[in-house]
Amino acid sequence: MASDSLPEKKRISESTIHRLSLYYRALSVLEKEGFETVSSKGLAKREKLTPAQVRKDLSFFGSFGTRGLGYPVVELREKISQILGIDRSWRVALVGVGNIGSALVSYKEFQKQGFKIVKLFDNDQRKIGSNHKGIVVSDIKNLANELELDNIEMVVVAVPATVAQYVVDDIVKAGIKAILNFAPVNLKVPDDVFLRNENMSMELEYLSFALVNDHIPKRVR
Amino acid sequence: MASDSLPEKKRISESTIHRLSLYYRALSVLEKEGFETVSSKGLAKREKLTPAQVRKDLSFFGSFGTRGLGYPVVELREKISQILGIDRSWRVALVGVGNIGSALVSYKEFQKQGFKIVKLFDNDQRKIGSNHKGIVVSDIKNLANELELDNIEMVVVAVPATVAQYVVDDIVKAGIKAILNFAPVNLKVPDDVFLRNENMSMELEYLSFALVNDHIPKRVR
Repeated sequence: MASDSLPEKKRISESTIHRLSLYYRALSVLEKEGFETVSSKGLAKREKLTPAQVRKDLSFFGSFGTRGLGYPVVELREKISQILGIDRSWRVALVGVGNIGSALVSYKEFQKQGFKIVKLFDNDQRKIGSNHKGIVVSDIKNLANELELDNIEMVVVAVPATVAQYVVDDIVKAGIKAILNFAPVNLKVPDDVFLRNENMSMELEYLSFALVNDHIPKRVR
Repeated sequence: MASDSLPEKKRISESTIHRLSLYYRALSVLEKEGFETVSSKGLAKREKLTPAQVRKDLSFFGSFGTRGLGYPVVELREKISQILGIDRSWRVALVGVGNIGSALVSYKEFQKQGFKIVKLFDNDQRKIGSNHKGIVVSDIKNLANELELDNIEMVVVAVPATVAQYVVDDIVKAGIKAILNFAPVNLKVPDDVFLRNENMSMELEYLSFALVNDHIPKRVR
């Protein structure tokens, strides 16, 4: 499925994308368990959503499933993987081989979904040249050059907040259009660069909100 | 602000909570920079949202700000910290001192928002008894007991997917009501337990979606 078959892509929200990732995982499990079809109700229940929400999400991408028979598991999983762009592999670089960075090099979920970390960068002379899971750490001085030479498509940034903007400026200069940032800072990128921020503390804030207010907000992802 | 002053808390969505976390961070920066007030427009621009969205989010929690003068920065930051439950500290245990777990022990954002990791658990004899950032790793066999004895309020789970459900069952037995799970698996918990799943790969899937479809979904958090 090419991007031009997303008829109403402008209406697709961030929450929908996250739910597609959840459906993808649920369908992978169902496939392994040998199920051939699944109803919107079945898929909704697994993810604690409503069947109407599931049907609405999937309706963005054309008509799926047959009333009374449900969605074909394998076909739907494959279609979602195409929509999410995970029916292929991606060349990913990681900048900052500290605590979080080192953990991400070994993070199996990245590899499983086709996100291959193939380059590592750091500015610490003790780390440069060292080997992490078969990848030799490069000097951050050569960042822009090496990102281009190695055809990197996405970069994960796990450097301290104080230097994150400088690092991201270099990444942008190298022509990279997708950045996942773990530094707790608001970064500026041009409009044509996709930037996501990951802050694990925000998940705990969600839990503290829930505990203090004894309230589970409406689930959206 | 106590929970009873959330008049319409049932209408608060997950996305709103995440945006509150973002506003909290933006206001902390504004406070440091010496700003006394901020308009909904100013706050919206920082977070790439609309002013209407900001006003709507903040309206859930009573009336803030004065038309034409904007929101008082310090007061709003404090109010949001009360709503999120981060105007206090929380006693957190972490189970699974592997790659991700070790990184989280040193994760400064947790400490900064008042989430204090005070207990570590693992099942690996080589890790039990070892010291991580001043915390001695306990044997997972004593999990339920020690969680209760140490008045733990939240647990972060960073164990392999294959054992995550067993670990979570023990955590629930100990009376814990808030769990943040990093294992890539759907866990079952009773209705009165708040569970959040963190999967860093989903952020990269969002980026691959954006690259493949050349489309940034509507921002919700």
